[in-house]
This record gives sequence, C-alpha cells and structure tokens, in this order.
Amino acid sequence: MDMNIKLNFASDYTKGAHPNILQRLVDTNMLQSAGYGLDEISESARNRIRKACACEQAAVDFFIGGTQTNAVMIDALLQSYQGVIAADTGHIHVHEAGAIEAGGHKVLVLPHQQGKLSPECVVKYLEDYYNDANHKHMVMPGMIYLSQPTEFGTLYSKAELKAFRDICDKYELSLYIDGARLAYALSCPENDITLPVLAELCDAFYIGGTKCGALFGEAVVVPNPNKIPHLFTIMKQRGALLAKGRLLGIQFDELFKDDLYLRIGEPAIKAAECIRHALRQKGYQLYFDSPTNQVFCIMKNDVLEPLSEKIEYSFWEKFDEDHTVIRLATDWGTSEADIRALLDVVG
Amino acid sequence: MDMNIKLNFASDYTKGAHPNILQRLVDTNMLQSAGYGLDEISESARNRIRKACACEQAAVDFFIGGTQTNAVMIDALLQSYQGVIAADTGHIHVHEAGAIEAGGHKVLVLPHQQGKLSPECVVKYLEDYYNDANHKHMVMPGMIYLSQPTEFGTLYSKAELKAFRDICDKYELSLYIDGARLAYALSCPENDITLPVLAELCDAFYIGGTKCGALFGEAVVVPNPNKIPHLFTIMKQRGALLAKGRLLGIQFDELFKDDLYLRIGEPAIKAAECIRHALRQKGYQLYFDSPTNQVFCIMKNDVLEPLSEKIEYSFWEKFDEDHTVIRLATDWGTSEADIRALLDVVG
Amino acid sequence: MDMNIKLNFASDYTKGAHPNILQRLVDTNMLQSAGYGLDEISESARNRIRKACACEQAAVDFFIGGTQTNAVMIDALLQSYQGVIAADTGHIHVHEAGAIEAGGHKVLVLPHQQGKLSPECVVKYLEDYYNDANHKHMVMPGMIYLSQPTEFGTLYSKAELKAFRDICDKYELSLYIDGARLAYALSCPENDITLPVLAELCDAFYIGGTKCGALFGEAVVVPNPNKIPHLFTIMKQRGALLAKGRLLGIQFDELFKDDLYLRIGEPAIKAAECIRHALRQKGYQLYFDSPTNQVFCIMKNDVLEPLSEKIEYSFWEKFDEDHTVIRLATDWGTSEADIRALLDVVG
Amino acid sequence: MDMNIKLNFASDYTKGAHPNILQRLVDTNMLQSAGYGLDEISESARNRIRKACACEQAAVDFFIGGTQTNAVMIDALLQSYQGVIAADTGHIHVHEAGAIEAGGHKVLVLPHQQGKLSPECVVKYLEDYYNDANHKHMVMPGMIYLSQPTEFGTLYSKAELKAFRDICDKYELSLYIDGARLAYALSCPENDITLPVLAELCDAFYIGGTKCGALFGEAVVVPNPNKIPHLFTIMKQRGALLAKGRLLGIQFDELFKDDLYLRIGEPAIKAAECIRHALRQKGYQLYFDSPTNQVFCIMKNDVLEPLSEKIEYSFWEKFDEDHTVIRLATDWGTSEADIRALLDVVG
Repeated sequence: MDMNIKLNFASDYTKGAHPNILQRLVDTNMLQSAGYGLDEISESARNRIRKACACEQAAVDFFIGGTQTNAVMIDALLQSYQGVIAADTGHIHVHEAGAIEAGGHKVLVLPHQQGKLSPECVVKYLEDYYNDANHKHMVMPGMIYLSQPTEFGTLYSKAELKAFRDICDKYELSLYIDGARLAYALSCPENDITLPVLAELCDAFYIGGTKCGALFGEAVVVPNPNKIPHLFTIMKQRGALLAKGRLLGIQFDELFKDDLYLRIGEPAIKAAECIRHALRQKGYQLYFDSPTNQVFCIMKNDVLEPLSEKIEYSFWEKFDEDHTVIRLATDWGTSEADIRALLDVVG
Repeated sequence: MDMNIKLNFASDYTKGAHPNILQRLVDTNMLQSAGYGLDEISESARNRIRKACACEQAAVDFFIGGTQTNAVMIDALLQSYQGVIAADTGHIHVHEAGAIEAGGHKVLVLPHQQGKLSPECVVKYLEDYYNDANHKHMVMPGMIYLSQPTEFGTLYSKAELKAFRDICDKYELSLYIDGARLAYALSCPENDITLPVLAELCDAFYIGGTKCGALFGEAVVVPNPNKIPHLFTIMKQRGALLAKGRLLGIQFDELFKDDLYLRIGEPAIKAAECIRHALRQKGYQLYFDSPTNQVFCIMKNDVLEPLSEKIEYSFWEKFDEDHTVIRLATDWGTSEADIRALLDVVG
Repeated sequence: MDMNIKLNFASDYTKGAHPNILQRLVDTNMLQSAGYGLDEISESARNRIRKACACEQAAVDFFIGGTQTNAVMIDALLQSYQGVIAADTGHIHVHEAGAIEAGGHKVLVLPHQQGKLSPECVVKYLEDYYNDANHKHMVMPGMIYLSQPTEFGTLYSKAELKAFRDICDKYELSLYIDGARLAYALSCPENDITLPVLAELCDAFYIGGTKCGALFGEAVVVPNPNKIPHLFTIMKQRGALLAKGRLLGIQFDELFKDDLYLRIGEPAIKAAECIRHALRQKGYQLYFDSPTNQVFCIMKNDVLEPLSEKIEYSFWEKFDEDHTVIRLATDWGTSEADIRALLDVVG
Repeated sequence: MDMNIKLNFASDYTKGAHPNILQRLVDTNMLQSAGYGLDEISESARNRIRKACACEQAAVDFFIGGTQTNAVMIDALLQSYQGVIAADTGHIHVHEAGAIEAGGHKVLVLPHQQGKLSPECVVKYLEDYYNDANHKHMVMPGMIYLSQPTEFGTLYSKAELKAFRDICDKYELSLYIDGARLAYALSCPENDITLPVLAELCDAFYIGGTKCGALFGEAVVVPNPNKIPHLFTIMKQRGALLAKGRLLGIQFDELFKDDLYLRIGEPAIKAAECIRHALRQKGYQLYFDSPTNQVFCIMKNDVLEPLSEKIEYSFWEKFDEDHTVIRLATDWGTSEADIRALLDVVG
C-alpha cells in the first residue's frame, strides 16, 4: 500500500477533497464544456463567491495553487519598479523559492510579531522611505502582503485590517491577502474578518481551496475589476490558466453551495482547540497563542524521535538546546478518532 | 443544466478524465500522503513512465498544463541569452500569450510546412546566424521546439527527429518536444516515433495528459537528469509545483498502468479517420493531410452558421472569400454514436 | 598606433565627439556637481531640448546608448502582458540580442518595406488580432516601434507618422520612435518630420547622440510626463542612470546650443548624396533609394576583397550569387577629403 | 555659472576625470576605430589590467556604471533559481532600486558588522539552509557579494577574503567583489588585498572607475573566462555594451598606465586621515573606525544647517535625538586647500 498509515498531522494538505466535490467531479465527468473557466459551472461558482463576499461586481478568477496565485497577483498589482511589504515570516519571503523576485519584485521585509505585521511598523517604514533623500534610488513600496491566518496561525483583527487599509490609502499601496487557510479563520470564534469585510478593505485576496477542502485551487477576488485589466491574459502568460477550467469551477461551486466554505474549517478548529487544551493539561508549553488549525508545541528533544515513529508532524524551529517547537496541523477532515489517537500517543 | 448538449468537436479537452483515473481518485481520497510529488503513488507513476520510455535513469516530473510546462522547461533548458527555434505555427509562438518571452527568451520563428519545421530550414538559419559578422549582437539559438503531433495534426517521422538530433549535436542545441497530444501520435498507424525513441533523441519532452485522458497534467521526461539540476526548486519558483502532487501521480499511474496511454488515443484516431473518409465521400475538401485526431475541412461560408447551431467546431482560418477552414477534434472518449450524429449533421 | 588608418565608412560611430562637446568637457572637468542628472548643466540641456521640441512640459531624460534606451523605454511603456509591433528589420528585433524579450515582452514583427512599417499592414494585423476568437491567449499589442531614419536609411513622412498616431489612438497603443540617427533625418531635405512634430505625435522618442556628434548618449523625450511616472527609479533599476549625469547634460547642452543638432548631420547628408551620385555615374546600382547618411551599393563579389584593403565598409546582404550589397556610412565629421579618397578607391 | 561653489564633500563622484584621461580623449577624438570594445586601445587596457592582476588569461570587460555592472554580473553568475548573499548594508540591497530582483534573483541579506559580512555568519546561514527540510522550497544561495571597501569605508582583510573563498568552495558558491571604490582600498595602508589577490580568490570582481578618476566606467575581471561564456552577448542584451567602447578602453588604459590606479587614491586617503585626525582633535566623535576615503562624523543637530550653507556633505543616519551622523567623502582630486577650507568651516 502506498499510503502511510501513521497518524498524519504534518500539514493541512495531505488528503483529497471534501466528498461533495468528489461526487460532483464524478457526476460531471463526461459532459463537455468550454475551456479556461468560460463554462457555466465556473460562472456559477463565481456568482456564489460574489454573493458570499457581498460584492456583485467583483472579478473572481481561479488559480491552481498558492505560490502561483501570489506570484501572478503580486506582479499584476505592482508596477515594475515597486516591491511588496511583507512580514519576514511571510510565505512569499520564505517558502516560495523566490517566485516574487522571479517576477522582478523585491520583497520588502519587516519584523513579524507572532507572524503578523504591525501597522505601526509599516508606517515607520514608509515614513523612513519617503524621508530618505535617496528614496528614488530604492525600491518603491507598492503594496502590503498579509496572510490570514498567518503562517503562525494567528489572526488579524478587523481593526488591524482597517488600519492597513488606511495606510494603503495614504501611501497609495495595494492591500492583498493570502488566504491559503482562510476557511480556518472564518470558522474560528476569535475571527471578526468576514468575506464581505475582505471585499470591502482589500484590493485583492484569495480564498484558499487546496488546504480547505478542495483537491486544489484558490479563488482570487478583485472587488474592483478595473484594478487589474486583462487578468485572463496575464494568467495565460504565466501558465496559470487551467485548460479544463471547469475543474476549478466545480470545486468552488461545491465549496460555496449552502455556504459550506464558511463552516468547513470547524472540525479543524475544534480539533486544534481540543489538542491545545489537552497538551496544556499534560503540562506542555505552547509556543504561540494561535487560535486556528495549527498547534505549536514545545517538546523535549528526546521525545521527538519516538513520537515521529507514531505520528507525522512538522519540525518548526529549535527552541533551545534541549527543546524543539513542533507543529501539528488539523484540517477539515480531522476526526475525533484522530484526536484521541494523537493524544494517546503524546503521553 | 450548465453543460451544452450540442455535439462538441471544438477541442480535445472538453471532457473530464478516463474512468480509471476517476475511480482511483475516489478510492484514494481520504488517504494522507506527502506533498509535492514525494508520495508513493507519484513514484510509482514515475517508474511506469521510465519503463515505458525504456529509460530507467530519466527524471520524470509532473506539471499541470501545457503552457506552464513549455514556459518552465524552455527557461530551464536555455541560458539567459539564448532563444528557442520554433515553427511560426508553434503553440509557444502563437497561443501562449508570450509566456516564453515573459521568461526572458525570444522565440526564433521559421516558416512551417503543414505545421512542421524542416531540418533544412533550421540548418540554413543556423548557418546564416553563425556566418553573420554581427551574430554576437543577436539572440543565440539554444534549442529547438517541436510539437508531436503538430498544432496541424501532422507528424514528424523518426528520420526527421534523428535529423534534428544531429543538428542539435552539431550546433549545441537542446531538443525539446511538446507532446500535448502525444497519445494521438502514439495511437496513429503512420507514427514511428515511440516513447523510447523520444527518450533516446530528445533532451526533454512531455507526455500530454490534459488532452489525452487526464483531468489535467503533463509528465515531463528528462532522459539525462544532469541536464537540468534543481528542477524541483525551479518548478516551485515558477508556481508549477502542485501541493497535492499525488493528484498528478494518480493520473499518470493510471495512464501508464497496462500501457493504457499507448492505446488511449485509438478511438480518436479511428473517429477522425472515419470522419475524414465520410467528408471526402460527401465531396468536401480536407485542408491538411493530417493523420491524427484533428480534421481540417474546407466549408462554404454559408453553411457555417447552420452547422454551428448543431455542433461545436473551431474556426481555423479563412480559405478564400467564400470558404473557411474549420477544425473538428476527436478525443479518447469520442464514441461511434458521436461520429454518426456528426455525419448526420454535416449533410 | 592603435587606430586604423584606412578610410573608414563602416559605421557612424567610429569617431569621438563634436569639438564643442570636447571643449566643454575640458572646461568643466574639475567643477563639482550633483549626480544623476540633477545638476544645472543637465537642467539647461533639458530646457534647450524642450524648447527645440516646442514642448515645455516634456520630460527629458538622458540614457547612455540605444539598446539600453529601447529596452527601458519599451518596458516602461508596455504592460507586462503586452508586446511591441515592429518591422522585421527593426533594430529591437534583429540586433539587440533579445533585450526586449529579456524585459518580458514579445516583439510582434511585421514585414518591412525598405525598412519601414506600413500603416495598412499594421491595421490589418490589429484587425486580425481583435477578430481572433483566441486573442486573449495571444500577446496583446501595446505599442508601435518605428525608427527615423530606419535601419535602411529611409524616412517616414509626416503623413505616415500621423497615420500611425491615428492607429495608436484607435487601438490604445503607444507610439515610440527610435531616433538613433535622428540628426541625419533632420538635416535631410526630404524630411518633413521636425522635433515639434515628433513631440506632437509620439508618446516617447529619443534624440540620438551616439551616432550624431556625442561621445555617447541618447535624450529621451516624453511629451506628456504623466505617461511614465517614476522613470528615474526605473532607470536606476535597469542600470541606466549615469552617476556623473552631467556628462550627458554637457553633451546635449552643446548639441542644442544654437540649434547645432538641427544641422550637425548636414555634412553627412551632403557626403552621402555626393557618393550616391558618383556611384551612379560610375555605373553602380544602389540597393535602396534612401536619402540619409547610409549608402547601400550593389557590388560584384570579386571587388569586395580588394576594396576592403583600402576602406572599411559594412557587409549588408547577399544580392545574388555574384553580387553583394555593402553599406557605406557617412557621419557629422565626414570631410570632402574623405569623400574624394573614397571615390578614388571605388574605381 | 551652473556649478556650485561651495566646498563639496558630498560624494566621490562630483568631479570629471583625471587629467591624463581627459588629455587622451582629446588626442584620440577624430581617430576612427571599431566599436564595442573591439578596438586596439581597449585591448591595450585589458592587457594592462591582466598584468596588474597577474592573471594573463582573465577576461576583462568594461561596463558603464556600478549598478549596471552588479546587475549584469550577478545575473550572469547565478542560475535562475539562485540568490546572492549580501550584507544588509550592501549597495545591491539598499540603493540599486531592485536591480538584482529585476533580473529575477533574491538578495539573501545577513546582518552587517560595520558594513562587513562575517564568514561565521555566512556559514551559519548556509548550514541552516541545507539543514532545513524545506530548503528545496527556498531560494538556493548561489554566490556571495562583498564590497571592498564597503559602503561604510571598512576593509576586508586577505584572511577574511580567503575564508569566504573556502566557504564558496565548500558550498559551490561564486565569490564576487564590488570594487566601486577599489582605488581607495588599494591606496590605504591598512589594506592587504591586492589586485592579484582578488584575481586569485574571486570568481569575478570589478575595478571601479567612476569614483576613482574616470569620467565613468568599471572594469570587470573574470579570472577564469570559462566561468561566464558569451558575456559579450549578455552585455548587449542588458544594454551594457557601449557603442564607442574605446571610450572605456581609453580611460582604463590611462588608469593602468604606470600603475596610476594603484596610487590614484592616495590624496583621498591622506585627506580623509587628516580630516579624521582634525575632527578628533576638535572633540568630534567618529562613527566608524573606517580607514578609507569616507569620514563618518557625529554632529549635533543644531550645527547641521549652518554647516550645510558652507559645505556639501551627506546625511548618513540619525545617531540619537540630538545628534546625526554625516558623511564627508574625499576623492582622487581633493587638494590640501580643500582640506584646510573644510577644517576652517568645521569650527
């Protein structure tokens, strides 16, 4: 058998798709439709997303994966001489193999706080930039990149997002949100940033499918389509246009049928909360106070190897000489049985 | 209902996937596996492809679509100052929205003959280039791009491919084949270029999935992996690495189980042959003498609109004031009933 | 001695600078000034050029060479998904080593007529593009590139330039002129395109210095500066900003003092006219009917080598088995003695 | 008069060229020569540089300015998926407007120490990179960028440079030195890195002309030319090839005649030393202990404006609420009178 049978909490993209999606793929398989997202199912999906975002005029486009989405959208939002402001923990800075730079743009990194950028820190950076006599010899900041939830599982508040919007208005920046794990924010009680809030405050954002119930796919929302003309051709040029575009339409049509996406993350949030509670009970120390589907736990080094024989987890970083931070990720399909098995293993 | 119910011969990527693929996706859906193609199913698929190519040491990597594959692979094979030689009908020149140029490379176009480059024409170009006193001010040719079958449905012979290999050896060029429709060459009686021949003569080629039975996906074969080190990182940088890589592994594992890929195109070839025969019988003139799954037929302009009410076809080009060339594409799933219905319509 | 002593008609950039320029460089050498063109001499030069163009609000920026200018300006005028329309003889297509493609843009080539694009041919191309059902999968035309004079020494008329302007307005294209040899157009009796005409009809153009009396340098004029914001930073990013920018300012300040630039090409035009006349008298056939500083003459192959021992000329192209087209270029510094010596040599 | 008459210590590129260079430009002005550096003076200059570097087989190529040189050479040395390690004070990171990223490469920044990278810090970074399980998703380090002297006027020692060479050998990196101010290192008593040492230890470095006596120009030395094939075409593609290449040849031929370059920085070093001594005497605190041609002095904020009325200096950075660091730069042409006048002004 070619699948591991260990408990797997290594990431939130280890499984296939939500059953509804799979069923729809089976049902529609031999129908014939136009390519490149010009089919009717894709149009239905776009309309459902527009409705969920309370933004009827929005452009909605389907991409295949997160790095592709970030690279294409950031390039589309920036002028050639501009860079993108991001936390030094941002996915685009660390784990996309230089995709943004391959598009010609510098990532302008600022120090994170639990994975988040602070509005104050960004303002300071912008003031320094515009006060610098040599700023025309430097990369002009053109946009702000945030991820919601962040790579550390933390959340921006609506007030913070509003603060970034104000900064963007003042300094003529675009505001872009990487929502690779957005379902896990939307299902989280601490979260107050809804899809309509994103559509109101951002120039573009994406609704993650790959980590949130789809086989693959990310839905980009551009509330004001005039912001990015000719995105279809841009996508084609960057190899981001799926020939059988309906495959993406099908997945997002299912994810937004009956608002499934808004609650698909709930099992993951409950599971993570349950795991955090149990770990604290057992005397473990958590590394971040992050409320979404990722659990960051400080472990003694000598338990790591025995643990890895029973479950898959991710190494996060060294804590000190004797301790290591590991990450356990839950997802839309994590069952109560999975949680019990995990907690049995973590003594 | 969101699917058209007209007969659809507009292209060969209107349907979903071969039933075996769909079944495997269903069967494996809730298993958990490593990402980015590092799972066991992907490894199995790679091994099946290596075996089918009689090339055990080959690197096999899975991409999502054709434009993406061409853009990444051509960039990976070229130095920054080199361009790629292609027919002026080549997909990379005409219909990829400048993806090759977006990677920094010029497409060096030469006139086609029924969609094919001729070795003589390429030699002439290379001799002129190297004889030009100013050639160091010009784009250096670094590779040859061919498609098999071509965009016009025609086929290169093994002797022609060998001639291109010799040219590449002499002028230090890479030889790359776009096999978006490769299954339709492999199932065609006129074809004498097998997978092992491709592996023997090319520096890289791709085995098309999207148009040949998969939902999506193209398998790139690099017979000598040293030719392109760090392709994994290159793919990541270009947004071409699928998080749930196993989805590509599953599809190609099924396509190469029991050599399915070698015969999956047969229904399309038989259908196209049958249609060509019937059209000739009915007195229509065919535009190219192409033996694969595309039929190019010259039609009087006044029948085009009535025809389009009953079937989907592609406009190809104007023939003269009163006539137009249309394209009818068959695929792996074209049934005898489809053919009969088509021929009923085309009076 | 490290300079050849043969008569040299190989090109129009074999000598140094006009004496006025050299003197000014000597006079100002030990003065200290601000860098990057922010000095007062550069500002004076910009003002003289604005005045000569009858366009007070124009942005004027100084570049170092022609390929650099074309690459930066074309990239600055295009969106990432757009290409530039050019004649297949255009310098950017043939002799800039892929500089435009290195910036991510396709050169959309159309057949030339004596080095010129025809408005009709461009209109046909644009109509076909927008009528093509697949045009969103193709490179969108974003600008037209012309050279005045062309690489073949021919001239566009004011009426033709106006026709291109109308096309650009209709199809939302930018109009850009490569004026590497512009002085030789401006000094030519056949020419009716003045600097104010260029400023009226073009989105950007450059006034060539390198081939027209300067040591190096090209002055870019953007009549409406809003068309390209942040050009300073774009230039810096592309390595096109000269630290001691005043060197460019000095040269163009001298070239536009007392309208020197408008007549600096006269000796070259007279010399070329004289050579053409004499060659015809001697029974030679000229290849183009081009009125500027380049003479294209059809020579028997067997005289080429003896000729090359006495003068430097450029090979242009083969005419037939027995004949070759050569190019003789005159320049601002060509003397009557040079002409006499040349005509003595060409028996 | 369009030149300022204030004492100008704002930078080391405010003046024209060394008198020998100017004279040679005058002497050679009306000679005619081949373009693009193929003339005999350029060849002479290349040979002088090879000799000064004790490296006969080196490729020597002339660029126009520093940003251009860095952008082209770093791109030429890196593979498309690689980045360049640099101090966070490195010119390529801060003041080149994203030129490296425009070429597709990430600058991998590490914290500086007085403008220098430390070998230990680089080793730590490389070990962390290769130990990271996800490093194939990250930008691969491909080279190290150092500047000698640094942007802060400090110097690497030969032992440090050797340590970087060893790191490069171990991790398969290229070593590249930005020598924009190299003459001021070579004339500095503290320096033990000679041109032959650079040629022995580096994969490429450039000998700065613009700030060291030339009107403009930087000479790139590639000790092993096989390291970068086709650099001529690369330069052309990037707009870095000067048509009248002899202008660069002339300048470097003069700079390396009788080893002028090795001592051209002496007046600047003596002047800076004298200024530093006097400032300390007057009770000022210097910010860095840097031995080359830049003086960094901490000033009370309230003297800045009066000072700026009498001399041009550069703002460096805020020291604290009440103090500011300013930079005074000397150059090859700084006279004793200049120094006396400066010290009169600085009370």
